[in-house]
Amino acid sequence: MNRAEGGVRVVQVPVPRLGNNIADVERLTAVLEKALGTDRVTLPLGVVKRLPALLRRFNHRIKVLLCKDSWGWRIINVQAPDSPEPVCGVALDIGTTRLVARLVDLENRETLGESGFDNPQICIAPDVLARIHHAKDPEGLEALRSVLIDSVNHSVSDLCDRAGLKVESVHFMVCAGNTAMTHLFLGIDPSNIIREPYIPAINVPGIQDARELGLCLNPMAAVFIFPNIGSYFGGDLVAGILFSGIHTNENPSIMVDVGTNAEVVLGTREWLIACAGAAGPALEGGMSKMGMTAGPGVIDRVKIDPVSCVIKIHTIGDEPAMGLCGSAMIDLAAGLFLSGMMDIRGKFSPERCAGQLVCDQGIDTLVLVPATESGTNAPITLSQVDLNSLTSSKAAMYAILQVIVEHTAGLGFDDLEHFYVAGTFGSFIDPVSAISIGMLPDIPMDRFKVLGNSSLGGAARLLVDPDLFDEIETIRQKLTYVELNVNQAFMNIFSGAKFYPHTDRSRFPRVKTGGA
Amino acid sequence: MNRAEGGVRVVQVPVPRLGNNIADVERLTAVLEKALGTDRVTLPLGVVKRLPALLRRFNHRIKVLLCKDSWGWRIINVQAPDSPEPVCGVALDIGTTRLVARLVDLENRETLGESGFDNPQICIAPDVLARIHHAKDPEGLEALRSVLIDSVNHSVSDLCDRAGLKVESVHFMVCAGNTAMTHLFLGIDPSNIIREPYIPAINVPGIQDARELGLCLNPMAAVFIFPNIGSYFGGDLVAGILFSGIHTNENPSIMVDVGTNAEVVLGTREWLIACAGAAGPALEGGMSKMGMTAGPGVIDRVKIDPVSCVIKIHTIGDEPAMGLCGSAMIDLAAGLFLSGMMDIRGKFSPERCAGQLVCDQGIDTLVLVPATESGTNAPITLSQVDLNSLTSSKAAMYAILQVIVEHTAGLGFDDLEHFYVAGTFGSFIDPVSAISIGMLPDIPMDRFKVLGNSSLGGAARLLVDPDLFDEIETIRQKLTYVELNVNQAFMNIFSGAKFYPHTDRSRFPRVKTGGA
Repeated sequence: MNRAEGGVRVVQVPVPRLGNNIADVERLTAVLEKALGTDRVTLPLGVVKRLPALLRRFNHRIKVLLCKDSWGWRIINVQAPDSPEPVCGVALDIGTTRLVARLVDLENRETLGESGFDNPQICIAPDVLARIHHAKDPEGLEALRSVLIDSVNHSVSDLCDRAGLKVESVHFMVCAGNTAMTHLFLGIDPSNIIREPYIPAINVPGIQDARELGLCLNPMAAVFIFPNIGSYFGGDLVAGILFSGIHTNENPSIMVDVGTNAEVVLGTREWLIACAGAAGPALEGGMSKMGMTAGPGVIDRVKIDPVSCVIKIHTIGDEPAMGLCGSAMIDLAAGLFLSGMMDIRGKFSPERCAGQLVCDQGIDTLVLVPATESGTNAPITLSQVDLNSLTSSKAAMYAILQVIVEHTAGLGFDDLEHFYVAGTFGSFIDPVSAISIGMLPDIPMDRFKVLGNSSLGGAARLLVDPDLFDEIETIRQKLTYVELNVNQAFMNIFSGAKFYPHTDRSRFPRVKTGGA
Repeated sequence: MNRAEGGVRVVQVPVPRLGNNIADVERLTAVLEKALGTDRVTLPLGVVKRLPALLRRFNHRIKVLLCKDSWGWRIINVQAPDSPEPVCGVALDIGTTRLVARLVDLENRETLGESGFDNPQICIAPDVLARIHHAKDPEGLEALRSVLIDSVNHSVSDLCDRAGLKVESVHFMVCAGNTAMTHLFLGIDPSNIIREPYIPAINVPGIQDARELGLCLNPMAAVFIFPNIGSYFGGDLVAGILFSGIHTNENPSIMVDVGTNAEVVLGTREWLIACAGAAGPALEGGMSKMGMTAGPGVIDRVKIDPVSCVIKIHTIGDEPAMGLCGSAMIDLAAGLFLSGMMDIRGKFSPERCAGQLVCDQGIDTLVLVPATESGTNAPITLSQVDLNSLTSSKAAMYAILQVIVEHTAGLGFDDLEHFYVAGTFGSFIDPVSAISIGMLPDIPMDRFKVLGNSSLGGAARLLVDPDLFDEIETIRQKLTYVELNVNQAFMNIFSGAKFYPHTDRSRFPRVKTGGA
């Protein structure tokens, strides 16, 4: 089977005659089973009903749309061989905060549109934990499910409108979300995910009927849901691995998704190790508290002159400053450290900060933008508490990386051929700053690769190439999940990583300090 | 796996702990896959949703209801281990003329009720051919489908009412019908079945969702549809074979279903040969014309004194005679032949019939009941035309048996260990009469076994014992279908079989004639 064929292909079915009078369905599946090298091709009753007339109208030559899961191949729909009707699909990243849908022509693989929108479940419950609690009650679960599905329906409908298509042109959807979001999307109670021993209801939902999920697509549309590995390792990360290609590389690579959680995957085509979630309260809470919501007036870049200690900020749209986003926070910490305004423990140095440091309610606080110049009529500041939170976050991040690379895999950071940074937040981080504060390891810059929304990317890859399903199975089988919160080494390493850049200075040879 | 366990069983799922934290669904399927010796246990989303709470409420001990098709095992539903809710199923014989539904408790295998009802499609189109033509138009197909499904829903609802149950207690249905009826039941256009080269749309529908078929059972109920072998060999006959056990016998046995068509299966546990349909117009039209509809006043038994030629009739309910049913027709022909009132060519002998023979519009006609004694105020008669039709029918039946046993299988009738007579009509035939007229072969009486509704019987067996599905696969694989209407030997043999009992008198040593 030529992978380039994808899920849409035109098939010539043998014309029946008295000596070859097996049924239409079995004749079609026999041809496909041979071509696909499988003994399992199924089709739903709706397709069976359309098949006989279509086969005879076009001399047994038909266009079929296929998808695949662990039960085998499935014929989603059949069409005339030269049908001008577009055959489209949607890749969907079901984020806790935000969803992104991408409309794709499944025949020529062209992207026809993309749309991001806030997860409407936020109005019901702000975070995953609150939503899981809300879903304990069947009505709460249904509310979370339906508001989510409705928003997806609206988004797909909009995307189709803008592309001049009807939603009936969407025959296939591929979704990737974390374990809790996947449960809520399917209408399954996720409550045991957060109760010891942390058991999802299902890890491998495979292909489901769009209609049964309440999705308004083609009535016969199929939906593939990326499998979870466990409660703390969802289909979004499996999709991310698929997108990164770590699982096909000969040499070790690592992927880091810095979102609400820190999630890390390390491996080669032979093995995969992952850890995720519960990576320390600082990284979880701290990072998300800082924002990550880019918008007009948000400070997205900070530069500090290492000699003069002058702080230069850049805001989105060059508007008066409103606040600080996460990537700017890392820039800021890097500048503070390199200029000596902050010491190796992450504490402000009053002598270097001079007049910019004030005492607010007994806490040292650095004024970045005075009230008179800000867009909020209040000063934009960074307190020692904020800084301590960042210190914990960056320490947790580095400790996770060190544990998984050195302790678990027995490698050094220099052995990593690629360092993939995934996630929306990751796209904005300046690796130089992140290395300077000891958050990311000090390896050559050309090894860092920004992946963007790897979950959406993985979903989109599978959408146009159902053969890739086999790689998902490989990822599932090869992946070992490491629990960090029961790892004693992690706690020891975490302490050392709380210094700037690290207690072990030899780990960061390229970081040049002492601007003062 | 103990076959006696059937489809309902209580399963202990390993209790999850930190070291064994796979998802609920995968934990349940792993246990079942081990117990069932398979790698394929699936469950629909509706069951997934119920599973987590149920597992935890009963310490991971649950009752599961299973069924099976060529794609593997399927969990239809899950319940509390000691749930008092009955778990029922319905076996359904989808006949062209009549349907029969049997309600069964799937746990103790008790029959809770049975109900037969006319196929309501008759009001739209009387026979299979007319219905297939009617179904060419999508609205016609839908009319035939919905009237059929409605009648099944009514019947199941009635059966449940009478058993003091709700239809929600019905979780599983097993259906068997001929190929055309199976298509109409599923809402699939059957028109290519009757067009050369006679291609069904589907032979192996497997398990379908009751809801999708429009059946009002438990919302999660599954429906297994017996597979067809081809256009002229439907799931009803596959179910019949399963019921007969021919496919498990060491020595050859034969099953004959004399319904609207003559259908014959011959075989052992090693091989199966079948032929059906197009068995000569006489058997097809003639037999059905005679009635087979038993009711008050219908003559069901006829005896003729071989010496005095006095005809004794018995009517159902001892009511005044209204007509003649098929089995009585065979008795009558046997009596006429054994008493010499009919010669070996099947023609009335005027000298033996004496005053009972009249000439009606130039055709010799035997008066069985004079107008004054009948329930119709008209005489009940048998004309030479009726008799010729019967002669063709019985000749076709014997010729089919001879071709399949002697020519195709190379056996003699004496080699047959069991001679199964299936079908409603078959249940009423007196084998002695049938042998006397040369319709059935002259073998010892104890080899004849009346099966009754073998199609319903087979469906009911599978209903309580899903493991039997493997036998259906075996039957499908071992069965060779022989086309009789392209068989030259058949036409030659047919001519000899048109005599009473046969031109080759040595074939019927036990038939003693010459009562005169």
